[in-house]
Amino acid sequence: MLIADLSESELIARVQTRLPQAPDWLVVGIGDDGAVIEAGRNRLEVLTVDALVEGIHFDRRFTPPAAIGHRALAVNLSDLAAMGAEPRWALLSLVLPPALPFEDFDGIIDGLATLARRHRLHVVGGNLTRSPGPLMLDITAAGSVKRRQVLQRSGAKPGDLVFVTGTIGAAAAGLEMLAAGADVVDACADRYLHPVPRVREGLLLARNRAATACMDLSDGLADGVRQIAASSGVGITIDAETLPIDDATRHWFERRAGNAIVPAATGGDDYELIFTVRPNRAGRLKALRLHGGAPITKIGVCTEERHVILRSGTVDSPMPKGYKHFG
Amino acid sequence: MLIADLSESELIARVQTRLPQAPDWLVVGIGDDGAVIEAGRNRLEVLTVDALVEGIHFDRRFTPPAAIGHRALAVNLSDLAAMGAEPRWALLSLVLPPALPFEDFDGIIDGLATLARRHRLHVVGGNLTRSPGPLMLDITAAGSVKRRQVLQRSGAKPGDLVFVTGTIGAAAAGLEMLAAGADVVDACADRYLHPVPRVREGLLLARNRAATACMDLSDGLADGVRQIAASSGVGITIDAETLPIDDATRHWFERRAGNAIVPAATGGDDYELIFTVRPNRAGRLKALRLHGGAPITKIGVCTEERHVILRSGTVDSPMPKGYKHFG
Repeated sequence: MLIADLSESELIARVQTRLPQAPDWLVVGIGDDGAVIEAGRNRLEVLTVDALVEGIHFDRRFTPPAAIGHRALAVNLSDLAAMGAEPRWALLSLVLPPALPFEDFDGIIDGLATLARRHRLHVVGGNLTRSPGPLMLDITAAGSVKRRQVLQRSGAKPGDLVFVTGTIGAAAAGLEMLAAGADVVDACADRYLHPVPRVREGLLLARNRAATACMDLSDGLADGVRQIAASSGVGITIDAETLPIDDATRHWFERRAGNAIVPAATGGDDYELIFTVRPNRAGRLKALRLHGGAPITKIGVCTEERHVILRSGTVDSPMPKGYKHFG
Repeated sequence: MLIADLSESELIARVQTRLPQAPDWLVVGIGDDGAVIEAGRNRLEVLTVDALVEGIHFDRRFTPPAAIGHRALAVNLSDLAAMGAEPRWALLSLVLPPALPFEDFDGIIDGLATLARRHRLHVVGGNLTRSPGPLMLDITAAGSVKRRQVLQRSGAKPGDLVFVTGTIGAAAAGLEMLAAGADVVDACADRYLHPVPRVREGLLLARNRAATACMDLSDGLADGVRQIAASSGVGITIDAETLPIDDATRHWFERRAGNAIVPAATGGDDYELIFTVRPNRAGRLKALRLHGGAPITKIGVCTEERHVILRSGTVDSPMPKGYKHFG
């Protein structure tokens, strides 16, 4: 059966059965002209929106429905993490081809709802509409944060150390493997299909006020380094040898491109956090290590001179250009 | 020049120059992983999201860019109005074909920004991405409302009177005229291209607590009547003769369909408010009339028996089915 055989209200009912019980701050939920919520007391609200578009951000031939739902929400959770916010609510706007099988619809919602539950994010409303072509998921998410704990891109100072969570490049390698028809059980493919937003790490960084600047690597490490440098008005030198790249990713890129550094640093979809820390506060990062978060790696330093450099041994090159959206 | 010739950051800069100065409750604006805002004190937040999809909700051949931007925001403002909320912020998610001329991009943003300014709504962030096909605008908007003033669909009781703002059917007639290549300066076409969200009327209804239930007519009067009846657990009888239909709309539908009532009652895109009022509070509607809002018309009554009826003279028929999204 296709979703064209169901009415809009039947589809909404299918979403609702997949959501956990409403939290007490939700005053009016799904079914009215808008959702009504109570804001968190003495908290700021962090807002983000991201669209996942078939043919641009995913290919239905090798992305299972649950992974589509997971990824659509993960990109938003990653943005909240990068601001140090605790996830709170989301609105789902789904633009659906009428020929979508309703098992796929259910799968998308299940993937999304499972990730939402893990991070105590509640879907408070949304919109369903037909698509004349591609499948699209546009998700707005909000989190709450104390005023003094907001993480921004703009606070890095010369001398600050640069860190990254987890490893880079695996999702980009995984996407290449999937597109090439390689075995989808590979760990890299899973990094692409089921990225883990670093929500806990973002919260810990915000709470112990270790980071001077932070952002997530949705468009790759090279882009992230450039953005933090530009927003903060500093230069950054990244030590290529220290970049955390796992063996499977390194092997894939070396075979494909002869070199793993540039493709791993410019590949998108990592959803790791990059952040800067004043040297005398680097000890505070122990908290992240103690709480079983992702591993963190020191990869560079902020400089007075405003160049963004990739250093390999004694050779400095300009940081390669990152992933580009338009054009 | 096409938007494909501009970078994402150049496009964002073009949006920013078209927005008014940031309000003082905006802590972090465009340019970080998320926007950060302060919630209104002692106020609930009303949230809504709506997508406008090329080929489903508009046709670029006869919808000028500024009208596309206007309509995308108007549908959201109309939802806020229906909940009695004062508009506050919006996030714009734009999915754009790379071959879009950048004059059209500017036109869309101008149409949207002009309407936002009129209702003191501030665009705090958003997302830009490429489309493999249709142009899409997905807007999330939020407003604030006092807890005791939230307007819902579910409060109507038997005996309550049913009112509607403005006139119905004009936008549907206007869309037919535009699609048929009729003169676009017609008032009906303008009702389709530039719907006026009833923000002030919604606020007045909420503040003087006149309405027991309220919603907006995005999918037509017939759908609105059914929704209020279903949410409130009442029947509703609408008096066909009292339906406010302007002369141009009546004339168009009578020539096309031999009858104006059914097409005007089932046509979408009205963005008027339908609401119910306890008879002993009907006097409070004077405030709406005094403040120069849209005209309001009594069109029916809520009943104990749960039928939704269209009464023409002495003949009762079931309310025709409204606009349908899927299938």
